[in-house]
Amino acid sequence: MAAAEEGFRPLEEESLVDYIKSTPALLVQLGEQLEGLAIKEVGDGNLNFVYIVTSPGGSFVIKQVQYTGLIIEQSTYCFVVQTCIKLMITSKSHLICLATQALPYIRCIGTSWPMTKERAYFEMLALKEHGRLCPNHVPEVYHFDRPMSLIAMRYLKPPHIILRKGLIAGIEYPLLAQHMSDFMARTLFFTSLLYHSTLEHRKAVAEFCGNVELCRLTEQVVFSDPYKVAQYNHWTSPHLDHDAEAIRDDDILKIEVAGLKSMFCERAQALIHGDLHTGSVMVTNDSTQVIDPEFAFYGPMGFDIGAFLGNLILAFFSQDGHANKDNDREAYKRWILKMLEETWNLFHQKFVALWNENFDGHGEAYLADIFNKPELQLLAQKKYMTDLFHDSIGFGAAKMIRRIVGVAHVEDFESIADGSQRALCERRALDCAKKLLKERRKFESISQVISVIEEISAR
Amino acid sequence: MAAAEEGFRPLEEESLVDYIKSTPALLVQLGEQLEGLAIKEVGDGNLNFVYIVTSPGGSFVIKQVQYTGLIIEQSTYCFVVQTCIKLMITSKSHLICLATQALPYIRCIGTSWPMTKERAYFEMLALKEHGRLCPNHVPEVYHFDRPMSLIAMRYLKPPHIILRKGLIAGIEYPLLAQHMSDFMARTLFFTSLLYHSTLEHRKAVAEFCGNVELCRLTEQVVFSDPYKVAQYNHWTSPHLDHDAEAIRDDDILKIEVAGLKSMFCERAQALIHGDLHTGSVMVTNDSTQVIDPEFAFYGPMGFDIGAFLGNLILAFFSQDGHANKDNDREAYKRWILKMLEETWNLFHQKFVALWNENFDGHGEAYLADIFNKPELQLLAQKKYMTDLFHDSIGFGAAKMIRRIVGVAHVEDFESIADGSQRALCERRALDCAKKLLKERRKFESISQVISVIEEISAR
Repeated sequence: MAAAEEGFRPLEEESLVDYIKSTPALLVQLGEQLEGLAIKEVGDGNLNFVYIVTSPGGSFVIKQVQYTGLIIEQSTYCFVVQTCIKLMITSKSHLICLATQALPYIRCIGTSWPMTKERAYFEMLALKEHGRLCPNHVPEVYHFDRPMSLIAMRYLKPPHIILRKGLIAGIEYPLLAQHMSDFMARTLFFTSLLYHSTLEHRKAVAEFCGNVELCRLTEQVVFSDPYKVAQYNHWTSPHLDHDAEAIRDDDILKIEVAGLKSMFCERAQALIHGDLHTGSVMVTNDSTQVIDPEFAFYGPMGFDIGAFLGNLILAFFSQDGHANKDNDREAYKRWILKMLEETWNLFHQKFVALWNENFDGHGEAYLADIFNKPELQLLAQKKYMTDLFHDSIGFGAAKMIRRIVGVAHVEDFESIADGSQRALCERRALDCAKKLLKERRKFESISQVISVIEEISAR
Repeated sequence: MAAAEEGFRPLEEESLVDYIKSTPALLVQLGEQLEGLAIKEVGDGNLNFVYIVTSPGGSFVIKQVQYTGLIIEQSTYCFVVQTCIKLMITSKSHLICLATQALPYIRCIGTSWPMTKERAYFEMLALKEHGRLCPNHVPEVYHFDRPMSLIAMRYLKPPHIILRKGLIAGIEYPLLAQHMSDFMARTLFFTSLLYHSTLEHRKAVAEFCGNVELCRLTEQVVFSDPYKVAQYNHWTSPHLDHDAEAIRDDDILKIEVAGLKSMFCERAQALIHGDLHTGSVMVTNDSTQVIDPEFAFYGPMGFDIGAFLGNLILAFFSQDGHANKDNDREAYKRWILKMLEETWNLFHQKFVALWNENFDGHGEAYLADIFNKPELQLLAQKKYMTDLFHDSIGFGAAKMIRRIVGVAHVEDFESIADGSQRALCERRALDCAKKLLKERRKFESISQVISVIEEISAR
């Protein structure tokens, strides 16, 4: 239980002021300027405390996991689980691991405080590593307090909003593909064996194995629950009843998803964000910031790339539900497809460029002494990038499916009030995902993926 | 340096007696009977101390890593590295990690005492886990002393000999395939996600990440050195000069091997022995014991299966070099192929049987709620076993290649005195390995692999 854990105390506005006063790293961020200090709570109220702290000398955000020591009733619990997962998707909010073993979901999410505490630790580790590798697109960590499960980081000032909300509002972000491809290429390349020695790789892999509880949550909600009868699955009903059943009866799909699940569980390819959907990105017209890597671990790169691309495709298919007489969203749909295409193509280009720049480095997957001719390097890169493309399509499609028939849905669809309209959008996304997942090895370019999307969209 | 490390002191016969007297776990093995105690050193003299300890009341083997604290000259060092790697292959002896950073190989093998010490720790961990899962085929660990890097285990009494020596001598072991398929099916199945929850899996994966130094040795000598110009590579020269060069110039082969190397480095599929060649198995007519799992870690299952099968194929191709007027070895060659066929087929059968027995268990790769029909289970198993078969062929072939053109050769070939005859045998093995490795995904059964072997053997 939280309160019993040594060193932890939940902060409120008042105790936060004392905490800031006694923490030099935070005082520095305010230019030692406490006069005019303002604290605004912006957390979701249930799951994390998130405070924006400003003074005339500076600002930062404080994020602290909020623990509950209560054994709660199952009915309440279901609500909390669904709510918090939904919040994870639609905002920068967080899932809390409840401190009891009594309920079915809880066994999957994490049973004890120490695991919960580690979640903040791994988020901090990943934020720092991502920030080191890609400082332009990751908020700086100013301070971490492990016993307090507290992270202080750069305040992403307005007009930063969550990308998903921007996509629902139909806002174009001209630099989005440029920035996201940068983030993915740099964070994935530099933590893979194309750059790492196996010595540093295994050491980092071992450390992030500790984040197993949040991996288990992904395993369940992405790779398992949508393919079986599960208590918290839901969908737009009765419209999609048959579609959900068809997913559970699709043998080929289930075999393919099991292969992706094994890859997720077994393959330590790079440090992945682990939850890189459009709710984990904050944007303005010229800034793109990736937040909330609490699911980070060494896993398959395609899981991150797929998460982002798959959520763009969900955004695409939701647009018809947001169209109205003033805006048919057709131009915006074309912009989303352009982002999809550019994100992969720029990622490909930047990732290979990093590989070329570091070909003689200490990365041990493809030694320069063995891959000792330009045409052989090209051949190796072509195979590697093709496999990565297919992995990304597969994981992206799996992420799409789970958002429509699993426990946790996305605001892109949930905000479409009319059930029939929503179901129509969702069914197209579902059909697209199934096709992409099952036939992913046939695709040779992102433009072929886009053709499938356009074809299904035109039905 | 060894001597400086707290708690470590190398034991000689005299100090070993004192050590036994002060160690209750060892006294028990001797039935507290010290009168008539006999100690026989059987280590290779350079790399490990191995003592057989017997008294009228019982017996055991003591194995202690022998450290050197000396900075040695490069010429001596090359000899030591080659010798010790060769000994690793041909006997149950061990590689020592030298305590200096000055020389090129040493960076790859391990630079410091703590890593070296951990080697004994991981060997003990794996011996215990293998023994728990397959007690009939693994010697029991009686005692482990971590500061002393010392393992006491069951003495495998005569007529136990190293399997490789038995294969060179042309001895048939009627239960070999039965026993080895048992060992592999049980140790691999029960440490995979077909049996493990991801919670226990990631915890075990993290622990064995510590055995990185020996993994790095494998990465270098199996997956890298044979495919480039490397100082310690050697082969039967001048006979195989062109063959070795052809390996280094084979682009398709190098791409395929790089894929296997990445799988070795990234994929934590099960606890593997890591060095399961015919020199790590001791046999009698009715006993089969797997020893020396010092390379153990969570890696791809196919690496173990391939190591064993690949070394049987090497034994097969070496037989012509051991034929003489009294024995043309043709019957023995057929027996080896029978073992190859039976080992895989029995492994397949036993592994799938364990899977079926545990289908409703806590293994998380294929949940019973999702794979909820017999025909779907069958489909999943078919895909899994086919992939595993292809991995095994690929890793087995890679292990064959490195034994012919890499740093560490096998006694099967090395004991063929005539260079031309040896080269002939080796070239066939090499050609077979290249074909198997590059075309492995085409094979549907072990009998097809055997057809390739027979065809190349008949050339």
